[in-house]
Amino acid sequence: MEETFVPFRGIKNDLQGRLLCYKQDWTGGLRAGFRILAPTTYIFFASAIPVISFGEQLERNTDGVLTAVQTLASTALCGIIHSVVGGQPLLILGVAEPTVIMYTFLFNFAKDRPELGPKLFLAWTGWVCVWTAILLFLLAVLGACSIINRFTRLAGELFGLLIAMLFMQQAIKGLVDEFRLPERENPSLAEFQPPWRFANGMFALVLSFGLLLTALRSRKARSWKYGSGSLRGFIADYGVPLMVLVWTAISYAPAGSIPKGIPRRLFSPNPWSPGAYENWGVIKDMVKVPVLYIIGAFIPATMIAVLYYFDHSVASQLAQQKEFNLRKPSSFHYDLLLLGFLTILCGLLGIPPSNGVIPQSPMHTKSLATLKHQLLRNRLVSTARKCMGKNASMGQVYGSMQEAYQQMQTPLFYQAPSTLGLKDLKDSTIQMASSMGHMDAPVDETVFDVEKEIDDLLPVEVKEQRLSNLLQAAMVGGCVAAMPLLKKIPTSVLWGYFAFMAIENLPGNQFWERILLLFTAPSRRYKVLEEYHATFVETVPFKTIVVFTLFQTSYLLVCFGITWVPLAGVLFPLMIMALVPVRQYILPKFFKVAHLQDLDAAEYVEAPAVSFHLSPERRMSRATSFADDGEVLDSMITRSRGEIRRTGSSKATSSCATPSRELKGIQSPRIYSPRISELRGDQSPQLSGRSPSSPRTRPSNLGKTG
Amino acid sequence: MEETFVPFRGIKNDLQGRLLCYKQDWTGGLRAGFRILAPTTYIFFASAIPVISFGEQLERNTDGVLTAVQTLASTALCGIIHSVVGGQPLLILGVAEPTVIMYTFLFNFAKDRPELGPKLFLAWTGWVCVWTAILLFLLAVLGACSIINRFTRLAGELFGLLIAMLFMQQAIKGLVDEFRLPERENPSLAEFQPPWRFANGMFALVLSFGLLLTALRSRKARSWKYGSGSLRGFIADYGVPLMVLVWTAISYAPAGSIPKGIPRRLFSPNPWSPGAYENWGVIKDMVKVPVLYIIGAFIPATMIAVLYYFDHSVASQLAQQKEFNLRKPSSFHYDLLLLGFLTILCGLLGIPPSNGVIPQSPMHTKSLATLKHQLLRNRLVSTARKCMGKNASMGQVYGSMQEAYQQMQTPLFYQAPSTLGLKDLKDSTIQMASSMGHMDAPVDETVFDVEKEIDDLLPVEVKEQRLSNLLQAAMVGGCVAAMPLLKKIPTSVLWGYFAFMAIENLPGNQFWERILLLFTAPSRRYKVLEEYHATFVETVPFKTIVVFTLFQTSYLLVCFGITWVPLAGVLFPLMIMALVPVRQYILPKFFKVAHLQDLDAAEYVEAPAVSFHLSPERRMSRATSFADDGEVLDSMITRSRGEIRRTGSSKATSSCATPSRELKGIQSPRIYSPRISELRGDQSPQLSGRSPSSPRTRPSNLGKTG
Repeated sequence: MEETFVPFRGIKNDLQGRLLCYKQDWTGGLRAGFRILAPTTYIFFASAIPVISFGEQLERNTDGVLTAVQTLASTALCGIIHSVVGGQPLLILGVAEPTVIMYTFLFNFAKDRPELGPKLFLAWTGWVCVWTAILLFLLAVLGACSIINRFTRLAGELFGLLIAMLFMQQAIKGLVDEFRLPERENPSLAEFQPPWRFANGMFALVLSFGLLLTALRSRKARSWKYGSGSLRGFIADYGVPLMVLVWTAISYAPAGSIPKGIPRRLFSPNPWSPGAYENWGVIKDMVKVPVLYIIGAFIPATMIAVLYYFDHSVASQLAQQKEFNLRKPSSFHYDLLLLGFLTILCGLLGIPPSNGVIPQSPMHTKSLATLKHQLLRNRLVSTARKCMGKNASMGQVYGSMQEAYQQMQTPLFYQAPSTLGLKDLKDSTIQMASSMGHMDAPVDETVFDVEKEIDDLLPVEVKEQRLSNLLQAAMVGGCVAAMPLLKKIPTSVLWGYFAFMAIENLPGNQFWERILLLFTAPSRRYKVLEEYHATFVETVPFKTIVVFTLFQTSYLLVCFGITWVPLAGVLFPLMIMALVPVRQYILPKFFKVAHLQDLDAAEYVEAPAVSFHLSPERRMSRATSFADDGEVLDSMITRSRGEIRRTGSSKATSSCATPSRELKGIQSPRIYSPRISELRGDQSPQLSGRSPSSPRTRPSNLGKTG
Repeated sequence: MEETFVPFRGIKNDLQGRLLCYKQDWTGGLRAGFRILAPTTYIFFASAIPVISFGEQLERNTDGVLTAVQTLASTALCGIIHSVVGGQPLLILGVAEPTVIMYTFLFNFAKDRPELGPKLFLAWTGWVCVWTAILLFLLAVLGACSIINRFTRLAGELFGLLIAMLFMQQAIKGLVDEFRLPERENPSLAEFQPPWRFANGMFALVLSFGLLLTALRSRKARSWKYGSGSLRGFIADYGVPLMVLVWTAISYAPAGSIPKGIPRRLFSPNPWSPGAYENWGVIKDMVKVPVLYIIGAFIPATMIAVLYYFDHSVASQLAQQKEFNLRKPSSFHYDLLLLGFLTILCGLLGIPPSNGVIPQSPMHTKSLATLKHQLLRNRLVSTARKCMGKNASMGQVYGSMQEAYQQMQTPLFYQAPSTLGLKDLKDSTIQMASSMGHMDAPVDETVFDVEKEIDDLLPVEVKEQRLSNLLQAAMVGGCVAAMPLLKKIPTSVLWGYFAFMAIENLPGNQFWERILLLFTAPSRRYKVLEEYHATFVETVPFKTIVVFTLFQTSYLLVCFGITWVPLAGVLFPLMIMALVPVRQYILPKFFKVAHLQDLDAAEYVEAPAVSFHLSPERRMSRATSFADDGEVLDSMITRSRGEIRRTGSSKATSSCATPSRELKGIQSPRIYSPRISELRGDQSPQLSGRSPSSPRTRPSNLGKTG
């Protein structure tokens, strides 16, 4: 995206790009069938559970003026509108922690002023929202999002890790509180006496660790050895919500022998209890706010606007990372404009506004990549099988697969349809087949493992559509009605879920992987190289990696420390935005530019690959090995948000640009096969394929230093 | 071992064999230095913890006549004597669960007889022990142990799994009891009120699962990526005792806010409390037992004798499995004779007798194999490094390593010293080096990774000596004095440890792996083949495997059911002994003899390996890859008690036979390299090395059936 600040140009570009694929956004979603429910449920839980918990937090902080009903309503409303008329449907909206902190501050300010008081609090926040929206409009119109490309990996990953830390902090704090007397409760109740409080805390430990461990394990179900493939797939897709159900059920197991309040469960008024709708008519009160306060509302509004500008854009950016190979354009400016409207709407309704959330947005894209992989795979496998049933030759099988693959692609705004797709693999496989003497003979599955072959050739692709976002938002809305059911979930399960969300998003964060590298034994550092394709491990001296990582870690800790400061805490995004000039002007004074580029690279650019994917051993092993879909899928999708390995050193285009040769290059299976082979630990072909100098140079970087 | 029932011949053979290596048993142990403490501590905990817990059980069942002091004393006394004058020093002695059950029955019988009563109970058991000993003498003299070879894998593994089930049952029962009111306690104490009882149960869950998960993980520390090699080695060696300490410390964390009795801790009188030594003078009372009861004592004695005969022999057998490549002879008959003497001794002292225990005995051998591997490795690495420092060629390096290896071997009773050792690898590596053009040039570590090479070539060898057994028994004796410290361990940590012992011993049990195979998705069954080298997966139809495993499982469940029957339970070993005729006469009527042989094979006999360890790719990868000691060691020692892969189809000699070409064959590194390569997931060379028919035949067995 070019950096242009011509008014409205950004919004116009966004609208043009997205309108072209709008219809396909819906038809594509509908064509996925019931399978769309897997990512939908996954994101629904990831979205609803924190929102409910933030609602509880708001309720304590605002003396019950705002509750989980309002946070859920805002998340559902904004989510539905955004999924229908928004630009980037991969972006997930929700009430986020910074909003909660901000509203807490606004409430504490308002309740002490005689002119406002708790009664006019929501009316005043209405004005804050109006000012915020105006600022967001300005930012959107003036093209502020076009500098998004300057938010490099450095800033994005630091922000991601900070969010993970905040989630983990919430999990720990929540667990510790389970041992304590809750505020605003009657301390004379049986369940708050020391024995039961201790029992409650221990029960909470069991429930939260149980949820955390089982949820983490269930996400890897595809690579389990036991159980049928469909069962494993089901567990991987729905395991996390399932585990929430299971541990909630377990929490009722000792019900007979313990007081009703143990373990503690979600607390929220039902949406139909009296007074729950009082704040919906806030617009009438807004005229009662004194003019001075209407003008003064501009001050908090600037802070919220900066926060939303950053949060919304980075969440969108993280949902559209290059390694996802998205085919539809981005929509930063238009989405920011829409966010302005949503903020006004929420303000007038007296509910806290929503914005783009991390980590839910990148989680959404990842889960859709899994979905797309399954859809493509099923189609190609059935095509290939049908073909082989007719005694077709290898060439014919690939021809028909190629055709089916093309049908699944919808080149909407590309000039040239991506014909490259499967061609490369076809060629190399035919070569292999002929070397084995099977070329013209009919192929059967003893020599040609269809599922395995197809897994090898499929690139990462994302099922980009609007349906999953709409459905998850609608389900969040349904939560308002299902409040009596939600209240059965123990709070400790929530803390386990918070920890799960923090941990689930660590792999693929190169910053995190570099921190781990510091603790890795020198003799094992080469493993990092194998698993994450981190160029920097080969090109940057280990000492530089250490210094850079320590700098980034200290910066992260400062940001984390700032969130603890009562008011300034809300401004931690400013700290992260400050990384842009730091990266551009200060860091080059301490690090070599080439090293910085490698450490901050958006993707993994490898030296031109030699002939290793043509070596006969590799093909032999490919043809004779067995189907092993799950693990590949697991590694490809859930583990590595990391870099993409590329042949050639061409720089990538940004994900929102128009089609180019490189984009098609990403889809070429030749590039993916080595990656997959390495993920299986099949190291010899990879090593032998490297340039001859590497075995000599690597030990000096890894084995000896540090 | 030949089946001969000539009186005393077995004992004579055993004595002759073991006397030859007696001196080396001590010098070898002393030469290992402080490293001997790793297996010693590991086995000490595995030995002491169950014995303490059985002591507690006995105390409840015998109204305090016998306590943990007595069980510890018996274990220490018998252990010390056995380690000094016993035959097989790998065998670990201890008071076992069946003994506890038996003594409980004897007590219940005695206390109701007016002629005996609780007062003469120990005197009467003294007579039972005398009769038992006489029977054991008879069995030993008449050579009953020579039929031990008929206890095939079928019986041994079933017994191993049964013991694991009993340990797991104890763990679960113990945990459930943590929620209940303990017997013989004052129910009006605060800690036994419902809230604290529930809190105690939940705390117990946290502590026991904490211990179980961390202990299991610490055993795999060698293959961790993080931390230095020595730290990882330390954790792997001492992690389990360390975790017992850590979780005991954690159990004191909430000490301020909870009653003293929470969590519940070990209960045992101190050895210096009054009355603790009352039973030591039991010999004086033995004359007071009425003659009728002295004769009647013969009946329980037969049961105990059968039990001990089986238990002691199978424990010894499992500690000397073929895959351990033991070099010193077995000593079944002499050890049974000694057990007779030990039983009399215990009977006269009024303490319950000890016998050979499972799973501690095989655990002992495994931990000594780890030790031996470390010792050999360190020696060879330092030799090779010294040599390379002098700019030696590859040939010279191997020459000096060969020499060092020979020095570490003590061919005591072998006619020909095993000169083969490293020769094969030397040849093939020299070949490799010359192909790389390094033959006469000085070698350095960039082209030749010493540690990696040595790991590849070292066979499984066990540090066979008496020191670790003596030390662990002495430490168990020390426990009697350290009782006040032991009492600080929470009982819930014990239950976690029981579960750990059950799970730790499952891998390598082929019966267990076959049960898992039933639940493995058809498309993943090939993985079992890769990991465990189970011939049967290739040669036996899947349906036959299923039927055989189901038969074995039902038999196991029947045995397990029998242990629940109040009195007959003690006789479950008879059920397992019955497997010998079942295997010999009944099973062949239902299964093909060839299939039975494969399913019940003592080791994995592979079709002659072709040339795959000579393929240039493999060597390339070997020479260029990095040191990766831990994982290999982990896989070799802790994971696979399984089969040894052999070239050629020669039948193996039993571990107690005199040296043979085959035994030396096992040590040949040629045989090990493929195994190690596969454990790394490096599958291509292996697959390409298989006979060409296998890719065709395997899918029909695995991919389609079931």
